[in-house]
Amino acid sequence: MKIAIKGIGITKFGELWDRSLEDLGLDAARQAITDSNIPPEGIDAIVIGNMLYGATAGQNHLGALFSSLLKLNCPSFSNEAACASGGTAIHLAVNLISSGMYKNVLVLGVEKMTDVSGGEISKALMGAGSGKESSAGLTFPGLYALMAKAHMQKFGTTREMLAATSVKNHYHASLNPLAQFPFETTLPKVLKSSMVADPLTLFDASPITDGAAAVILSSEISNNDVCITGSAVATDTLDLSDRDSLTEIKATRLAAKKAFEQTATAEDNALNINDIDVCEVHDCFTIAEIMAMEDLGLCKKGEGGSFIQSGATGLGGKIPVNTSGGLKACGHPVGATGVKQIVELTKQLRGTCGLRQVKNAKIALAQNVGGTGATVAVHILQKN
Amino acid sequence: MKIAIKGIGITKFGELWDRSLEDLGLDAARQAITDSNIPPEGIDAIVIGNMLYGATAGQNHLGALFSSLLKLNCPSFSNEAACASGGTAIHLAVNLISSGMYKNVLVLGVEKMTDVSGGEISKALMGAGSGKESSAGLTFPGLYALMAKAHMQKFGTTREMLAATSVKNHYHASLNPLAQFPFETTLPKVLKSSMVADPLTLFDASPITDGAAAVILSSEISNNDVCITGSAVATDTLDLSDRDSLTEIKATRLAAKKAFEQTATAEDNALNINDIDVCEVHDCFTIAEIMAMEDLGLCKKGEGGSFIQSGATGLGGKIPVNTSGGLKACGHPVGATGVKQIVELTKQLRGTCGLRQVKNAKIALAQNVGGTGATVAVHILQKN
Repeated sequence: MKIAIKGIGITKFGELWDRSLEDLGLDAARQAITDSNIPPEGIDAIVIGNMLYGATAGQNHLGALFSSLLKLNCPSFSNEAACASGGTAIHLAVNLISSGMYKNVLVLGVEKMTDVSGGEISKALMGAGSGKESSAGLTFPGLYALMAKAHMQKFGTTREMLAATSVKNHYHASLNPLAQFPFETTLPKVLKSSMVADPLTLFDASPITDGAAAVILSSEISNNDVCITGSAVATDTLDLSDRDSLTEIKATRLAAKKAFEQTATAEDNALNINDIDVCEVHDCFTIAEIMAMEDLGLCKKGEGGSFIQSGATGLGGKIPVNTSGGLKACGHPVGATGVKQIVELTKQLRGTCGLRQVKNAKIALAQNVGGTGATVAVHILQKN
Repeated sequence: MKIAIKGIGITKFGELWDRSLEDLGLDAARQAITDSNIPPEGIDAIVIGNMLYGATAGQNHLGALFSSLLKLNCPSFSNEAACASGGTAIHLAVNLISSGMYKNVLVLGVEKMTDVSGGEISKALMGAGSGKESSAGLTFPGLYALMAKAHMQKFGTTREMLAATSVKNHYHASLNPLAQFPFETTLPKVLKSSMVADPLTLFDASPITDGAAAVILSSEISNNDVCITGSAVATDTLDLSDRDSLTEIKATRLAAKKAFEQTATAEDNALNINDIDVCEVHDCFTIAEIMAMEDLGLCKKGEGGSFIQSGATGLGGKIPVNTSGGLKACGHPVGATGVKQIVELTKQLRGTCGLRQVKNAKIALAQNVGGTGATVAVHILQKN
């Protein structure tokens, strides 16, 4: 499988009080179209990734909305899979192109989260979980805290390991001017920040963010294009309590396996995790990044914390993870996150990441999670 | 293009106070799986069509929800395009299969509309329109009334013609035990029913409905399978006031043209509208069915009203339209409607429609509209 990423666009992430969802989406989409050198009339479909705008702003029909605003008037789709809405949008677009029905597809992930109160947004975000969880009063910090506690008990993972993940991602964000928190933090600061859901502190948690990211995918592939060579989605139970294990996100394993299988070509065997030069993973909470390391096979099960603590996943390390700053420090506009990961990795493979550039990055992987792992999208990118 | 419809399932449509969204969705999905003779583990993806559950019930992530409830644990997607969410779900599933990535895909359209007040549901439904329309206080009856008024002025369409559409669809519904209103009505009753938005009365409008419909689509095609041979989506401006004309739904023409083009094979030319034996069209209001007749080319522009009045689109007529009872009388659970159309037409082509069977029906067309025509999905079905 090979689909070219012809163009990318991304807005500043943050609390953007002066920008609407429409403004953010248009900005990212127009950047991507310009970057692609494809004339607007050459874009023949749009796929939107968005979770919350129907619930928080009463605006649905976002495919038609952006088709209208962009004056593209092409078939337009909007998909929702909680915080994996961006990743599933990319996957659907890959399928629209692979089917032969569409050639150039705009994927736009966009979310406007700061226009409603914290209480409202917490309630809306629980739309990603099960009714049983919501009615028990659980929120996502609580659900991930349950996983963190289980991981600590089973594998001896420590709060310092969780905090090290946050420190690393803040360091990366300090090199990314578009990040919501483009500054460093320290281990003591993370450990002393206010407790949200034991053992997760404020600095273990990704923020509420406004932002948009867009890519143009295409069946026409040129030399040096960054391409998607693996694209897979897997699901697990919606309810965390129905899972076999609290210490893994099984859908990550399943999606990664499938995505790697797709990278096999007539000439070459399938890639594996050891071939990856740079990753963006879904660190909605620090424990999620630790589990992602393990579930992707970057380290053994139970060793994710010490793996991150060792510096292996920092810039200059063996396999830099979340050079954008991750969800923690770049920000987490939920429907945009999965597309932002692809934008960041495309920049890495193009070699345009500036101070946070990973040297000789040739193969990249993105992992995007919905809910507590009920949906996971994994994409593999390679330079053609 | 040829994708088999292996299984179909549908619930009773109506005000189903004792049934949840989950219950309705599971019922339709299980019927479709059983009907397909494909073992559950053979279903390798799910596409949900739903518009309102995030906004009205705070539950998102419906792909993972139904994957969990059905214990299918396969890649699951949820898409929204207002009242065309069912039609776009079918189109996305067709692409998932055509890409070669998936073989058997469950498409489930499901909506639970009666659990919130009429005011809330009207507000939520305006999520399908533009912000300009919402803030002007317009609702969908008002928007379609504007189109009806324009059509009356330009072409001399009468209230009797609108009413005739309702009478026909109620007659069809009287032969469909799953319809929300399985009874006949009369021209005087429609004309005397309370005015909703001049010239549209209560009996010109589709109701608020709970219900679900499901199909299993597959790349494996057997003799006698009903198949999708054309699948297209088109968009127009979200805002009605941005359109060139109030008296047509341009996206219907564009989507139908594309869908017909796809029916061409190595042996045969593309089908055209004269080949169609039976249609399901989107009669959210009677004027919408009149415009659909014209925009699909079943009659000349401006003559949709007299065409319906002539009896040509009733059972036994030249081209029966909305044998299910249509949105008007079968009901309109918004995200389910586009899938229900495919279920009804599959039954027609299988010859299992009982009293409302169209004799020798071999080729069928479904037209599903989102908003005031910002999104239109058209599907063409043929018996293999």
